[in-house]
Amino acid sequence: MNTFGNIYRLTTFGESHGPALGGVIDGMPAGIAVDTDFIQSELDRRRPGQGKLTTARNEADRVELLSGVFEGLTTGTPIGFIVRNADHHSADYDSIKDLYRPSHADYTYQMKYGVRDYRGGGRTSARETLCRVVGGAFAKLALRQLGINVEAHVVQVGNHLLTGSPAEREAQMEEIVSRVRAEGDSIGGIIAGVVSHCPVGLGEPVFGKLNAALAGAMMSINAAKGFDLGDGFDGVGQTGSQMNDEFCIDGGQVHTRTNHSGGIQGGISNGEDIRFRVLFKPVPTIMRQQNTIDKDGNEVAFTAKGRHDPCVLTRAVPIVESMAAMVILDYYLLNKTTTI
Amino acid sequence: MNTFGNIYRLTTFGESHGPALGGVIDGMPAGIAVDTDFIQSELDRRRPGQGKLTTARNEADRVELLSGVFEGLTTGTPIGFIVRNADHHSADYDSIKDLYRPSHADYTYQMKYGVRDYRGGGRTSARETLCRVVGGAFAKLALRQLGINVEAHVVQVGNHLLTGSPAEREAQMEEIVSRVRAEGDSIGGIIAGVVSHCPVGLGEPVFGKLNAALAGAMMSINAAKGFDLGDGFDGVGQTGSQMNDEFCIDGGQVHTRTNHSGGIQGGISNGEDIRFRVLFKPVPTIMRQQNTIDKDGNEVAFTAKGRHDPCVLTRAVPIVESMAAMVILDYYLLNKTTTI
Amino acid sequence: MNTFGNIYRLTTFGESHGPALGGVIDGMPAGIAVDTDFIQSELDRRRPGQGKLTTARNEADRVELLSGVFEGLTTGTPIGFIVRNADHHSADYDSIKDLYRPSHADYTYQMKYGVRDYRGGGRTSARETLCRVVGGAFAKLALRQLGINVEAHVVQVGNHLLTGSPAEREAQMEEIVSRVRAEGDSIGGIIAGVVSHCPVGLGEPVFGKLNAALAGAMMSINAAKGFDLGDGFDGVGQTGSQMNDEFCIDGGQVHTRTNHSGGIQGGISNGEDIRFRVLFKPVPTIMRQQNTIDKDGNEVAFTAKGRHDPCVLTRAVPIVESMAAMVILDYYLLNKTTTI
Amino acid sequence: MNTFGNIYRLTTFGESHGPALGGVIDGMPAGIAVDTDFIQSELDRRRPGQGKLTTARNEADRVELLSGVFEGLTTGTPIGFIVRNADHHSADYDSIKDLYRPSHADYTYQMKYGVRDYRGGGRTSARETLCRVVGGAFAKLALRQLGINVEAHVVQVGNHLLTGSPAEREAQMEEIVSRVRAEGDSIGGIIAGVVSHCPVGLGEPVFGKLNAALAGAMMSINAAKGFDLGDGFDGVGQTGSQMNDEFCIDGGQVHTRTNHSGGIQGGISNGEDIRFRVLFKPVPTIMRQQNTIDKDGNEVAFTAKGRHDPCVLTRAVPIVESMAAMVILDYYLLNKTTTI
Repeated sequence: MNTFGNIYRLTTFGESHGPALGGVIDGMPAGIAVDTDFIQSELDRRRPGQGKLTTARNEADRVELLSGVFEGLTTGTPIGFIVRNADHHSADYDSIKDLYRPSHADYTYQMKYGVRDYRGGGRTSARETLCRVVGGAFAKLALRQLGINVEAHVVQVGNHLLTGSPAEREAQMEEIVSRVRAEGDSIGGIIAGVVSHCPVGLGEPVFGKLNAALAGAMMSINAAKGFDLGDGFDGVGQTGSQMNDEFCIDGGQVHTRTNHSGGIQGGISNGEDIRFRVLFKPVPTIMRQQNTIDKDGNEVAFTAKGRHDPCVLTRAVPIVESMAAMVILDYYLLNKTTTI
Repeated sequence: MNTFGNIYRLTTFGESHGPALGGVIDGMPAGIAVDTDFIQSELDRRRPGQGKLTTARNEADRVELLSGVFEGLTTGTPIGFIVRNADHHSADYDSIKDLYRPSHADYTYQMKYGVRDYRGGGRTSARETLCRVVGGAFAKLALRQLGINVEAHVVQVGNHLLTGSPAEREAQMEEIVSRVRAEGDSIGGIIAGVVSHCPVGLGEPVFGKLNAALAGAMMSINAAKGFDLGDGFDGVGQTGSQMNDEFCIDGGQVHTRTNHSGGIQGGISNGEDIRFRVLFKPVPTIMRQQNTIDKDGNEVAFTAKGRHDPCVLTRAVPIVESMAAMVILDYYLLNKTTTI
Repeated sequence: MNTFGNIYRLTTFGESHGPALGGVIDGMPAGIAVDTDFIQSELDRRRPGQGKLTTARNEADRVELLSGVFEGLTTGTPIGFIVRNADHHSADYDSIKDLYRPSHADYTYQMKYGVRDYRGGGRTSARETLCRVVGGAFAKLALRQLGINVEAHVVQVGNHLLTGSPAEREAQMEEIVSRVRAEGDSIGGIIAGVVSHCPVGLGEPVFGKLNAALAGAMMSINAAKGFDLGDGFDGVGQTGSQMNDEFCIDGGQVHTRTNHSGGIQGGISNGEDIRFRVLFKPVPTIMRQQNTIDKDGNEVAFTAKGRHDPCVLTRAVPIVESMAAMVILDYYLLNKTTTI
Repeated sequence: MNTFGNIYRLTTFGESHGPALGGVIDGMPAGIAVDTDFIQSELDRRRPGQGKLTTARNEADRVELLSGVFEGLTTGTPIGFIVRNADHHSADYDSIKDLYRPSHADYTYQMKYGVRDYRGGGRTSARETLCRVVGGAFAKLALRQLGINVEAHVVQVGNHLLTGSPAEREAQMEEIVSRVRAEGDSIGGIIAGVVSHCPVGLGEPVFGKLNAALAGAMMSINAAKGFDLGDGFDGVGQTGSQMNDEFCIDGGQVHTRTNHSGGIQGGISNGEDIRFRVLFKPVPTIMRQQNTIDKDGNEVAFTAKGRHDPCVLTRAVPIVESMAAMVILDYYLLNKTTTI
């Protein structure tokens, strides 16, 4: 269950404060040029410490590729990779090792496994997502060659819809997050993703609908609590006559006049932009005292220490893109098996 | 890709106007008493023609069990089943065989497969979901023995939140749907599901989070366009201090004082009610003229014929329950492998 | 675990004395012409009662296709099928319902599941294999279009190597089997399979080697006890210099001068004939008194009743072919995903 | 396809002359004590350079565990590991980079992928198997706690059956291999494996028979060409009355008087010793001149350089054990899902 995908498959491992995180990419098509600078730049996008809004923890997060690439090309064999954990402050976590922090996974992991690496959240740490970004970066390299583009953006922070230019949107976001940080609190929001130039035909009905795969992928990201496609929840008040996407010929190609469907019909891509949204809850670590219990059932008061983002949205953008890129490549490859 | 699940697995087949639909349930635990009346009653819940709100097509939809049950008990071997298609009006569909109906899967299926059974939507028909209900009914039989309950309800039709007693809610719904039908239009809405008395520990991080599995399951249902967990999209404006669920001891048991998380933390059930919502778009078949193109790219006007629900929400309730029941049983079984 | 394959997948169900056996073929490529006479003729090859050597039980074993075929072509949607069980003599089995027959699966099923359908062996009956033959027949239809051929033959009965023309071989076999039947005993032997005109490149190292897939497929057949590839066990005394297959150019094509490897190198087909053998043990049902125990641990003497083949080799031939055909088609489809 | 197993899953990566090999073990039960000395000792058993019979290449082959273990116990999260490649003589391979060595995978990899890492065989090198040994060592740690034992031994070298004490058998083997080495040739043989104290009930009919899983596992090992269970090919001349294993009560337990079946009936373990054999062909690298072609189709003569084992049997023993241990643990865990 630490493997994602059908043909293009990512298997990951690693705890926040162990020696390293890493993974294996299996099913990478052979013969794709490997742009290592691009891969590292994708990792850098999710790294903490880039801007004003993110945590002070600053690790190099250098990915080391161990296999599957030869003379600059993918060979079709699995790509092993690791990212060392360099910047440990494990002692920070001694005070919480017997606590169940509110809305964290401490309690559920302890109950399920009977043992857990409590340091920095262990396997539940958001550091796990850097392996997804490596998997996504390789997928993007293949998609790029196919002309398929995957992009995501923060579109809402708390109740606030971001508007205007990228700079204006970033400014709005910084203002909200700064205020939340000053209050020792945290905030969530919404990221929107778009897959453009996606070929028609990706998606494997019935249970393998492309939207089902995207939903499962996105909801596997830490703190993701919701997903919708096309007009989604915002369109709940519309009727069929308002929502239906009529087909037309445009530029000699089949298109739909509108795209309320979000580029997927009957679980299969129709060639229009695939548009989806992912909801992220506020991170549960806040700089305020909270009440909880310890493993013996005693009530205890608890205040988080250390370095924590009050808002993970910016860093979640490349993760959303990565999951989408892996799904699209996986379903592109699956679709090749539809006919002999 | 017509198989759902890991240990408890449902594989389905069947087109709307073929001889039969059916499936195979694999991984059903041995020794469970099979209540065939219950299974049929679940199918009856999704059957058209039950109330004022649904289509006039009235098929018996009798399920025939072909294997895997002996002297009233499941044997642990696969359960094959079929449901005959009895009430064909295939000629109704001749007029649309070369059309791409707006927001249907005609176009994407044609492009993907090069051939499709256009009669009644073929494989894309909502009749496919009756196989899910059979799979869900068997899952419920096992869950019942474990004391786990799965229930769903329509909570919103279009923009209208249903309120009051079940009878009042049904009345509100009938009124809206009648109005929409009179206009030859269709309407969507939201179904909420609750899994109660779920044990702690179900869910397989990282990619196998219980919420990811539920999201993928729900988004594989026809016309589903969104999913959220716990407070979901409605809680987007809340901060961490408002959203965190503090642990406490209640009745000698670990509980959370609130349940904004929706019963899942770190991808693993925490013993609280699992609460989720599924968004359904309006069905695309409406009784109004629409513009589209045919397979040769000619623009054509098109008006649907035949019998069609203007709102599928009522019939989707047992389907949502079924998908949830299958996920919960599957993850219950998976969780047994956590330790030796 | 009642599903076989990766892309081309067969899921089966059914007990010997239940209402029907059947299955679902998923991943069948779209657009393949469906020759129903061929499919039925394949089933007839494994049917009892064809010749002098097989049991008197004579069922029609008519396959009913329920989906996935439209206007004579596969549609890419799953193909559901059933074969009714018509000729029940369940009462024959009452005397054995509490016994553990020697070298049958009675004991292991009872221990594993706690309940079993003892009639005719239930799920463990060789009747299960007719579903494999349906899956294999569809695979052969696709392979035929690709020019790939799969064939198997009985090459050894007991210690006796069959030689000469087909008629001579059949005569030798009949003589041995008749003698064994007269003694109330049973006999096994070896079936050899050949896949010819297989393209280069099928096989997915490391764990997905084509030979590993073939071995797993063959060893899943009832009564199969051994598998080898190429020269196999017969070549154990040869050295590397004797066994190596040197490459050459023949008719403008790359070939090997010899084919000790059996057409697979490094787990990947090399274009030569894929040659393998499957060992079948004698069927455990014999017409002699045997000692065993009942479910309460009492020692009991036991003599089989009913109709039983003393040798299943002839009927196993289409099953071996079917499993091979499914593996080859599955790996053909997988190989399409090696590159974009 | 670089993943092995259902619940207990090993995913591997790595080329012979890349930076490292490694893998991810997923599904390892939580709470198992990790004996790192044992794991390393298992790796040492397959390492070259241990005795007179194996190659001069002497690498440390130290495994580095990167995750999934905390305070000496498995945590149920995936175990990432790597083994660095320390001893490269890549230049040795320049002369063969455009050749297709007889009975190697050079040709099939080149055709399948269009690109390959030719150095030391790349992904096809037997060095890949050290990842299997790490996976097997962890499985053995869990099995040990369950009282299940897995052992393998070389029983035949070429045509020579080894007899007598371990020391005598080793002496016989050394003599044969020395002679073969002196002739610049190579030799294969047979390894026999035994799983003892295996519980009743492991195995998932129909396609998931325990023997099918073992066969697939063994045939995925480099150079494996055959597999049999119980009496196997040696028993082909026996009749049913000779081969059937009668049940009896022995020491208050159900047993079989004989074990021709090899501990598996109907695909499910019956509690007797699971006995199987694996055939290995002679390694294709020999110190004699061979004829072959290059990638342009030119005929070329070729003589191997470097250090090569004339017989891999001794080093294959821990690999056979590892594959068996992984299968048994996987099916032990699967069997826990048979009932609720």
